[in-house]
Amino acid sequence: MVTPPRVSNDVAALMKRIGASARAAARELAVADGATRNRALSAAARALEQQADTVLAANARDMAAAREQGLSGAMLDRLALDRNRVAAIVRGIEDIVALPDPIGTVIAEWTRPNGLRIQRVRVPIGVIGIIYESRPNVTADAGALCLKSGNVAILRGGSESHHSSRAIHAALVTGLEMAGLPPACVQMVPTVDRAAVGYMLSEMTDTIDVIVPRGGKSLIARVQQDARVPVIGHLEGNCHVYVDRSAAVDMARDIVVNAKLRRTGICGAAETVLFDRTAVPTHAAVVLRALLDAGCEVRGDALLQAIDERIVAATEDDWYTEYLDAVIAARVVDGVEGAIEHIGRYGSAHTETIVAEDPQAAERFLERVDSAIVMHNASTQFADGGEFGMGAEIGISTDKFHARGPVGIEQLTSYKYVVRGSGQTRS
Amino acid sequence: MVTPPRVSNDVAALMKRIGASARAAARELAVADGATRNRALSAAARALEQQADTVLAANARDMAAAREQGLSGAMLDRLALDRNRVAAIVRGIEDIVALPDPIGTVIAEWTRPNGLRIQRVRVPIGVIGIIYESRPNVTADAGALCLKSGNVAILRGGSESHHSSRAIHAALVTGLEMAGLPPACVQMVPTVDRAAVGYMLSEMTDTIDVIVPRGGKSLIARVQQDARVPVIGHLEGNCHVYVDRSAAVDMARDIVVNAKLRRTGICGAAETVLFDRTAVPTHAAVVLRALLDAGCEVRGDALLQAIDERIVAATEDDWYTEYLDAVIAARVVDGVEGAIEHIGRYGSAHTETIVAEDPQAAERFLERVDSAIVMHNASTQFADGGEFGMGAEIGISTDKFHARGPVGIEQLTSYKYVVRGSGQTRS
Repeated sequence: MVTPPRVSNDVAALMKRIGASARAAARELAVADGATRNRALSAAARALEQQADTVLAANARDMAAAREQGLSGAMLDRLALDRNRVAAIVRGIEDIVALPDPIGTVIAEWTRPNGLRIQRVRVPIGVIGIIYESRPNVTADAGALCLKSGNVAILRGGSESHHSSRAIHAALVTGLEMAGLPPACVQMVPTVDRAAVGYMLSEMTDTIDVIVPRGGKSLIARVQQDARVPVIGHLEGNCHVYVDRSAAVDMARDIVVNAKLRRTGICGAAETVLFDRTAVPTHAAVVLRALLDAGCEVRGDALLQAIDERIVAATEDDWYTEYLDAVIAARVVDGVEGAIEHIGRYGSAHTETIVAEDPQAAERFLERVDSAIVMHNASTQFADGGEFGMGAEIGISTDKFHARGPVGIEQLTSYKYVVRGSGQTRS
Repeated sequence: MVTPPRVSNDVAALMKRIGASARAAARELAVADGATRNRALSAAARALEQQADTVLAANARDMAAAREQGLSGAMLDRLALDRNRVAAIVRGIEDIVALPDPIGTVIAEWTRPNGLRIQRVRVPIGVIGIIYESRPNVTADAGALCLKSGNVAILRGGSESHHSSRAIHAALVTGLEMAGLPPACVQMVPTVDRAAVGYMLSEMTDTIDVIVPRGGKSLIARVQQDARVPVIGHLEGNCHVYVDRSAAVDMARDIVVNAKLRRTGICGAAETVLFDRTAVPTHAAVVLRALLDAGCEVRGDALLQAIDERIVAATEDDWYTEYLDAVIAARVVDGVEGAIEHIGRYGSAHTETIVAEDPQAAERFLERVDSAIVMHNASTQFADGGEFGMGAEIGISTDKFHARGPVGIEQLTSYKYVVRGSGQTRS
């Protein structure tokens, strides 16, 4: 059983202690081999299984407080755990164990004319701060991904899920202890004082190498405002499907409906569908009626509103909006160039897809749209590390710096150059 | 002839204009092909050749002002241009033209079981800000590296080299115009007002994707203090050579002398030599006398001072110091573990080398030292993009985020995922 650190009134002193022990743990973890890290993860999964009752009791406390505070149904759903969800968290950790060890991998190697042999070798980044909101499973996912990639994690979850996260964290610490690794390899900030978030973002430049924020607009805005520690940014996913005149009508319908409605709450869900002007009579009616019939609200421009009386008028704001709900904006554009322009102006550079049989239109879209993920004839809902075959991920980066797209264990690493010589000096 | 923008008293308004035109230029540059970018670079090299007299006249103005201000000899040398140095700048641009185009390269590709074909494709980062000090050649190097990698550059040079940099910048703009690219692809901040640096670091998060600072400690400290834009950091190079008991004595001597004295002013120059305790009688005397005889000041611990009366006493500060001069600190450590510990405590994680015949000692050092570049039996002065075969570089990153070690054209890129399907929807 882990004794949680006493909550200090002095957040700065508390965070300094956490940072110092994270640095010390990082030095030990950097030289632990992959088998040891996996042993810790497997033991954590077993501990979580065994401590499921404790986790569910902690979650019941969080849920009671959340209901008292009048949190929305969607918020309550994100917060809630049951036996199935705990089992899914355990499976998630086991999946991470099964991934290949990224650390020590030789990414590239070459020999210079003077005989120097140069290798670029994958190493951990060091200490990663994760700031997240109400989903307690992030505690396990983020902690496990960091540990797998040889990084120390400092987790700062939302106050709503504090008890649940703490119980999950205790299982991770059990795993670390059973593998002989420092418990400080995965630390949870033990206070719900929001000052801790500010301290992580702006004061811990010496101890945190990078921060991964996971949450909604207000968190992201705060991170953009305050961060002096490097950040792997996860902006919103205002994703687009563009239906070209050359698209197969059935394929366009299936892709748009899937991209919007398979799950509306994920960042890869489509938020706007764009129709080629010459595809309005042939494609738009079929696609939009399918959405409407499936219960989706459609907000269209004047041309598209004429198709069906259920379509309401879109405003300029709609082009910018990530609904994360069964609502879609719909607009007519002038061909692939018009789609590229609309996406460049209103999009969030996350994921966009073109439905087209014309290969030239497709290639132009794939080349010119500057988003983390550009797709041809596929649903935007594939924007996911697992679906990409990269394993579990901590999110989808809309940054161009360091990591873009799914952030899996490989993206949580850095590299160093190892140079082997035989006495070379430089002339 | 380029008309330089009028210097505005309102730095914020000026920088906003520069940022907006950089963004617009980035959109155009992102779709220009490699041949066009090379044409611009070749034309810039020719323009610089032809405008050499103008550049030298501008440099004479900078030099006169610098002498008046009483700048040191080393500062004056960094600032000075002559025909040979201009010719070297021209050759530098031509070397960059000859590098392979990084943009559009497929870094990785794979096919998923559902038939989705995924490619990770190299793309420019976007807009790169370079903040540098007195060397006017950085204007050409940084501008050319950014252009080669499809990035727009915003250059902010030191006030001492303002006229020289402006004349070199004019040649780059001529090249852009001759290739039909927007002149705003390489912009120079036209004011020496230091407020412009602060504005770039903290206010241009929407327009600058990353800042590369090149300069001394005060610049780096300011960047660490103020930056809210992502930074590729170049800290100092407090580089170490560790001489193991198993080292060949002649090799140790040659490597240490080369690592320290070949050029003392570069970041890859060695600043501390560490001797295995059992190698003091066999190796230290030979190595240290060779340094002393070559005119190097040696600051040693008590054990090493006993070797030669010319060795002065080192203080704790010496272990932290990047001399960038013909001075070296020397210390006895307990074997490879002692060396790893010393480097971890005092080093700047730039470049370290072990001289050893014992392969186990070497591998332990290469694995455990957490620096951008770790070497075995080779001089630290090889820490250089050109020597690594990566072509020209903008510096050596001591960050672990995004890029580590030499920052060449490849490190100035990001990537996107291109996904090709045949109608796949996610189940």
